[in-house]
Amino acid sequence: MIRYPNGKAYNPAKPPNSPSRAKVESVYSNRGMTLEEDLNETNEYYLAQGIAVVHKKPTPIQIVNVDYPKRSAAVIKEAYFKQASTTDYNGVYKGKYIDFEAKETKNKTSFPLRNFHEHQIQHMNQIVKQNGISFVILMFTSLEEIYLFEAPSLFPYWQDMKKDGRKSIPKADIEKKGHLIELGYHPRIDYIKTIDKLYF
Amino acid sequence: MIRYPNGKAYNPAKPPNSPSRAKVESVYSNRGMTLEEDLNETNEYYLAQGIAVVHKKPTPIQIVNVDYPKRSAAVIKEAYFKQASTTDYNGVYKGKYIDFEAKETKNKTSFPLRNFHEHQIQHMNQIVKQNGISFVILMFTSLEEIYLFEAPSLFPYWQDMKKDGRKSIPKADIEKKGHLIELGYHPRIDYIKTIDKLYF
Repeated sequence: MIRYPNGKAYNPAKPPNSPSRAKVESVYSNRGMTLEEDLNETNEYYLAQGIAVVHKKPTPIQIVNVDYPKRSAAVIKEAYFKQASTTDYNGVYKGKYIDFEAKETKNKTSFPLRNFHEHQIQHMNQIVKQNGISFVILMFTSLEEIYLFEAPSLFPYWQDMKKDGRKSIPKADIEKKGHLIELGYHPRIDYIKTIDKLYF
Repeated sequence: MIRYPNGKAYNPAKPPNSPSRAKVESVYSNRGMTLEEDLNETNEYYLAQGIAVVHKKPTPIQIVNVDYPKRSAAVIKEAYFKQASTTDYNGVYKGKYIDFEAKETKNKTSFPLRNFHEHQIQHMNQIVKQNGISFVILMFTSLEEIYLFEAPSLFPYWQDMKKDGRKSIPKADIEKKGHLIELGYHPRIDYIKTIDKLYF
């Protein structure tokens, strides 16, 4: 059995470029991989192929107490999770700055906006103003559909919610304004293909 | 007394655009701020002014044990520092991806290459191949001089060291191939000014 570096089994049941969405989905379900693992695997593929350089940022931690035992590595004894002030992923594609956040929902008809935070939206706004490419990757886990949704499409829904509007984006809107990313094997979630079509 | 958000005192002794290097240096010494603090302050200035969006990445941590006490925040009880696989700073300026590492030395005649790691050099190489802007900020602390040194200028010294060549970059070479960044007040280390001249 072939295994990924993280120990997960590689399941080559699905032939590449399979046209069947149902097949992709069933394989996807059986893999037991998370959206984050799939994106990391995708980014590793991009890096190895020289297609793009994108990394997930480390989780920000507030370190309170560190122990320095003799002859061994420093041990963090007390620390707390901090809220991130940016999005999780960023990097470079053909010289351009790309930046995104990936979120998932079990809902089938809409994507809840509570998945995002005000400071993340602000960060996306700053990126867009600086002519960077900013987007979110939205996964409907029970439907196994993944969309690339550009930040400027997201902003109006956020503003509307803040004015006591609806707290989610209707799936129909995501289908219309977003871009379905077909799931594959290598890479798993080929979002650069969509970026290439939209910006280059 | 005016204070920075971090509590450090703001010392307005030096007038803006002062031509005197000695004066800049003495003020710099008295501030007691580190290169990292100065860069964070610079990046905050860029962000507030809409000039660029650059953040320092969080320190990567390997979390081993987390305690979840009832009714309070999760406490990380055991964790270790991991070596970063990228550089510390990245972001966007006028749509372009920028990426750098900042290092300092007490030496006066050369900059030791042991300040860098193989994986960081590899990362810089990947950025350059992807047409991103990659550089290092080199500070000679006892001279209080800061240079922007582009990654493609750094690579030959690294390769040479790996072939048992010299383990540092002569200061004269940094003066010649690098770009002196004049220290200021707001922003402290205006590296974007240099990037603008070099790439835009």
